[in-house]
Amino acid sequence: MSTDIHPFDSAVALTATGVPGQYQGQASKDYWNMVGPYGGITAGALVQAMLQHPLCLGDPLSITVNYAAAVGAGQFVIDAEPVRTNRSTQHWLLTVTQADAEGVMQVVTTATAVTAARRETWSATDTPMPAGPAADDVPRVPALVGAVEWLNRYEMRFVDGILSMKEDGAERDSLTRLWVRDNPPRPLDFASLAAVSDVFFPRVWLRRAKRVPAGTVSITVYFHAGREELAAAGDRPLLAQARGQEFRNGFFDQTAQLWSESGVMLASSHQIVYYKE
Amino acid sequence: MSTDIHPFDSAVALTATGVPGQYQGQASKDYWNMVGPYGGITAGALVQAMLQHPLCLGDPLSITVNYAAAVGAGQFVIDAEPVRTNRSTQHWLLTVTQADAEGVMQVVTTATAVTAARRETWSATDTPMPAGPAADDVPRVPALVGAVEWLNRYEMRFVDGILSMKEDGAERDSLTRLWVRDNPPRPLDFASLAAVSDVFFPRVWLRRAKRVPAGTVSITVYFHAGREELAAAGDRPLLAQARGQEFRNGFFDQTAQLWSESGVMLASSHQIVYYKE
Repeated sequence: MSTDIHPFDSAVALTATGVPGQYQGQASKDYWNMVGPYGGITAGALVQAMLQHPLCLGDPLSITVNYAAAVGAGQFVIDAEPVRTNRSTQHWLLTVTQADAEGVMQVVTTATAVTAARRETWSATDTPMPAGPAADDVPRVPALVGAVEWLNRYEMRFVDGILSMKEDGAERDSLTRLWVRDNPPRPLDFASLAAVSDVFFPRVWLRRAKRVPAGTVSITVYFHAGREELAAAGDRPLLAQARGQEFRNGFFDQTAQLWSESGVMLASSHQIVYYKE
Repeated sequence: MSTDIHPFDSAVALTATGVPGQYQGQASKDYWNMVGPYGGITAGALVQAMLQHPLCLGDPLSITVNYAAAVGAGQFVIDAEPVRTNRSTQHWLLTVTQADAEGVMQVVTTATAVTAARRETWSATDTPMPAGPAADDVPRVPALVGAVEWLNRYEMRFVDGILSMKEDGAERDSLTRLWVRDNPPRPLDFASLAAVSDVFFPRVWLRRAKRVPAGTVSITVYFHAGREELAAAGDRPLLAQARGQEFRNGFFDQTAQLWSESGVMLASSHQIVYYKE
């Protein structure tokens, strides 16, 4: 095996099991979070499964991933089924299963997705990229000793809303803007765009200036980029923005947008996140 | 049958078929849209199916509904399966199927959802209700002769971004704010909150001042309201806000928020919508 394989490609590498629509992968240590792989990498693997499926129509338009349980170390299985194929859209049901301690396969992730054959139409934005410093003018966050591993897989340059090292308990707004790309740089594709849509640390940490236990329950990504926009984005940083909306009784939601360096919105994303206390 | 049954309750009424997790409903003429029932009423029926399921844990936290095909007139079948139950969250896979012309059951809608047992924690908002006139101070949109039927099931009072009667082709922003409730008024519950989250006409109509063919592909609703907040909202109007983000090559997305009259965010919602040329 070549040592030139990017960690992202290794993390989302899937092998067909022979059962139609079934693929096997390996939970990535390179993207390890606290109790399982980074949620974004699971989203990326699910996108990859659809794109590898022989019946796949078009390109990803939307995906919703529900984290039912932490993915554990070792092998996992993705089942990807195109349950309805229309003229220009295709609807998918997906699950990730993994053997439990007794060897029984358990659902750890569910997902639905839509792929679509897109064609050029009137287009416009109502959410232009916010003004701010260029990626190259913002200092890169240094590698943190002892941080969870997946953080090392992204190059991050915070424009606004970086997490404070000191927990002062002072409540503030929950807006973060950062320039971000794979580390090392890798040309953007649909799978890596899905993955990076989950790059934001929990908004509750910023809002409260307090790092309470928190984890994504469900994330949705809408792909605005087609292949041309992905190719144009290349391996340059994306401007990624997230803001919490409502924090209530153990769950908060956030909205997020990701633009290419040239100001094209590539994806928008939303998630609902569990938090403790 | 009493004539006092609210049209919403009739529209989401489900009968257990005897197969575990399987329910039968009837496509509602009261909520008819152009080629099938209003998408929101399908979302409401899916919420209802979960809540009727004997194994349901807690209250709705999130639901994503994918409109794979128009629901036709007549009966439909919902299959609701809790695929993973944790200590305080439960993950669901749902489908709506309907017999095609040959009598073969076809998937017309897919969904995933999460229910959760919530408990009181630190809570806050980062998206307060926008200031504006009270519901009672905004004129109600009169019933429109010849309009699609579901529009008559909602009382709407537009604060901002009402659809112009004349298509002048002048591009503008896509923000709408309206006070809205069931018509006739009905105490809010989880199913009707899911339904009303889809109440906004397609943002592309407002943005372009042009009514091109358009239809929701996928909607996600995050429930911030628990039972107490629903009870407090009662049958009073909600302030509902939606804005398009990106319109690109046949699809746009929107973000939406719904607040109670007293300013509590009850739900946030997102959708991606097909539009033609």
